[in-house]
Amino acid sequence: MTAMESKEWHIVAYAPEGIPTSDNLKLRSTTIPVDAGSIPDRHVALEMLFLSVEPFVRSRMTGREDGLYSPQLDLNQVVTSFGIGRVVESTDDKYAKGEIVTGPFLPVAEYCVVPSDFIIKKIEPNGDIALPDYLSCLGVPGFAAWVGIEVLGEPKAGSNVFISAAAGGVGMYAGQLAKLRGCRVVGSTGSDEKVILVKEEFGYDEAFNYKKETDLDAALSKYFPDGIDMYLDNVGGKMLEAVLNHVNEGARISLCGMISEYNKVWTEREGVRNLLNMVGKGVRMEGFMVGSPSHLARFGDFAREMEGHLRQGRIRSKHKIYHGVESFLESLQSLFSSSNMGKVILQVKPS
Amino acid sequence: MTAMESKEWHIVAYAPEGIPTSDNLKLRSTTIPVDAGSIPDRHVALEMLFLSVEPFVRSRMTGREDGLYSPQLDLNQVVTSFGIGRVVESTDDKYAKGEIVTGPFLPVAEYCVVPSDFIIKKIEPNGDIALPDYLSCLGVPGFAAWVGIEVLGEPKAGSNVFISAAAGGVGMYAGQLAKLRGCRVVGSTGSDEKVILVKEEFGYDEAFNYKKETDLDAALSKYFPDGIDMYLDNVGGKMLEAVLNHVNEGARISLCGMISEYNKVWTEREGVRNLLNMVGKGVRMEGFMVGSPSHLARFGDFAREMEGHLRQGRIRSKHKIYHGVESFLESLQSLFSSSNMGKVILQVKPS
Repeated sequence: MTAMESKEWHIVAYAPEGIPTSDNLKLRSTTIPVDAGSIPDRHVALEMLFLSVEPFVRSRMTGREDGLYSPQLDLNQVVTSFGIGRVVESTDDKYAKGEIVTGPFLPVAEYCVVPSDFIIKKIEPNGDIALPDYLSCLGVPGFAAWVGIEVLGEPKAGSNVFISAAAGGVGMYAGQLAKLRGCRVVGSTGSDEKVILVKEEFGYDEAFNYKKETDLDAALSKYFPDGIDMYLDNVGGKMLEAVLNHVNEGARISLCGMISEYNKVWTEREGVRNLLNMVGKGVRMEGFMVGSPSHLARFGDFAREMEGHLRQGRIRSKHKIYHGVESFLESLQSLFSSSNMGKVILQVKPS
Repeated sequence: MTAMESKEWHIVAYAPEGIPTSDNLKLRSTTIPVDAGSIPDRHVALEMLFLSVEPFVRSRMTGREDGLYSPQLDLNQVVTSFGIGRVVESTDDKYAKGEIVTGPFLPVAEYCVVPSDFIIKKIEPNGDIALPDYLSCLGVPGFAAWVGIEVLGEPKAGSNVFISAAAGGVGMYAGQLAKLRGCRVVGSTGSDEKVILVKEEFGYDEAFNYKKETDLDAALSKYFPDGIDMYLDNVGGKMLEAVLNHVNEGARISLCGMISEYNKVWTEREGVRNLLNMVGKGVRMEGFMVGSPSHLARFGDFAREMEGHLRQGRIRSKHKIYHGVESFLESLQSLFSSSNMGKVILQVKPS
C-alpha cells in the first residue's frame, strides 16, 4: 500500500459573522492511501497543485443559508474549492497518472482521493497558458466577469461602465472585457497601488481609491459626469447605494458578489435606501452565481472566447499567490482586507 | 367671447416629505376664454371630465429630482395628470366639438385650453367601456400592470406570483393578468375588506392584510410554502426586503412603484439589507416607468390585448371615484392612507 502524508484544512466551528479565524478552521495531518488497491472504483488520487481562494469558500462557513445560499460545510468536513491537481492514481480509465485535472470541489489539502466525476476538465500541457490562469482568467473569476459583462450587462460601445473591487479576481477581467467592447471604464479599489495597477495593466480609463475618496457621491460625480450605464457590483452596501444615485435611464447592474457584506448576518448589512431610483430610471439589476445551470450552459462559449483573448494578449492577469497549504487561512482572510492585487490563489506546495 | 368660470389646483409650496396638504396645494378660480377667436392655433378647449389620481402626481411636488425622477411642477403651476375631457372648442382640424379625448398632462381643473398635441387619443363612444376604464384598465395602471407582468415578469403557468397593494390601481390588474397566465397569485393589502375584494372580484388565490399579519416573514412563509417566483412591487421598503428572503432561483421582481417611500427623502427611506440574496438566487429586479419610450412603444399591443380582456369579461375593474374638482386634494391624500379600493379617479363634476 502506498500512502501519502497530507495536511488538510477542516472546519471546527461556523463563523456566522466576522472573518474566519483559527477558531473556525484548523489544519490536521492525515495519511491518504493512494494506491489503486486502496481507492474505490471510479476515483482518482490527486496531488493538489493550486486552489482558488474566493468569497464563495467563506460563504460555506456561516452555518446558515442566505445571501449566496451556499451549501454549508458539515462540521469536521475538509474545506473544498475550485482547484487543480495531478493524478497520482486512478481507478477510472478516463484519467491516467500524471494528468493535470481541475474540479470545483477539491479539498484544501496536499493529497486527496475523490470520485472521478468531481473532475470537470483535463488540462493539456500547453506553454501558452500557466496553470494558475485556469483558476483565474479561465476559471471562476473570469467566468463571473464574462457573465456579468457579456451576458447580463451587455454594455454598448461608448457607454460608461463602473466596476467595484476593480483589482480583484473578477474586477480585473470585467474591466478588460468592457474595454474590449469599446466602453469607457472606471474602477474603484482600495489602494493607490491598485489604482495604478488597474489603469496601467488592465487599461481602465480611470480608477479611484475609495479609502481616500470616501465621499462616494462626490467621486462618482467626478468620474461619471455623464452618469453610469452599467455597473458590475462586487461590494454591495454603500457603493451600490451611491451608484443608484448616478444611474442613467435603462442602466444595468450585474450583482456578482458583495464583499462588504459576507461577514455580517443579513439584518446587520447595509440597507440600500434608494431602490426607488430603479423605478424612475428603468434600471435592471440582476444577481448571478456562475454555478447556476443557466449560466454554466454558457461555459463553453466563455472558455473559447477567453482563451482567444488570453492567447492573443488581449487580456492580462494578476495573481496573488500564497505558498504552502499552511497559508490557506491567511489567504482566505486576505480577501476581506483589501490587501491583495489580483486573483488570490493557493499554491499547495510551499515553493 | 365665450369664457368659462373654472376652478383649478395649483402648487404653492413643495412637499419634500409627508403627505401634501392645503399648505402645498390650493384651489383657485379663473376665467378661461374658450371661443375659437381666443384660443391659439392648434389648441383645444376642454371641459374636463375625469382625472387619474396617482402617486406620479405626488412625485412632481417634492421639489427635487430623485426616485421617480419626475419633472417637478413649477411653483404656481396648475397640477396635471392623465385625464379625459370633452372638446368645447378646437383650432385643430383633428378635433371637433363634442369629441371625448385623453391626454397624459391635462390640468386638474374644470376647463382648460391646451395644445392639441397634448391629446393622445380620441375615445369613440362605446357602450361596452365606461369612461373611467380609460384611466384604469386601459390607462396608466392597466398599462403598468401589463408591463410589470407581461413584459418584465413573464411568469410561467403554475408559478407563484406575489402582488403588493393588490387592491390598488395596478395591483388589481396585475393579479388578474397573472391569473390569465395560469399562475398561483397571492396579494397583500391593507384591510380585510380588500382581502375579500381581491379574492372574490379579482380571482386572487390568496390574500392577506399586512396590517394584521405584521410579521411579513411569517406571512410569506405561510402563503408561499414553495417560495416566490415573481413579485410585482408597489410598496418597496420592508415588504420588498421580506420578499427577498422568500425568492426562488431565477425569480423576477418588477418594481412598479414604492408607495411606502414617496413621502420621504431618500436617506430616510427603508434600506433593503438583503440584496445579497439576489446573487445567491440569481434574481432579476427591474424598475420601470410606463412613460419611458421603450415601454410606450408597446402601448398599442397592450391596448389591443386589454380591450379584448375587458370586452370579454376576463378583467374586472374597481374604481374609487371622488366627485367634484374640490375633492382632488383629498383624493390625492387618500393614496397614502390605504383607505381606497381600486383605482382612484376624480370625476370633475360633483355629481
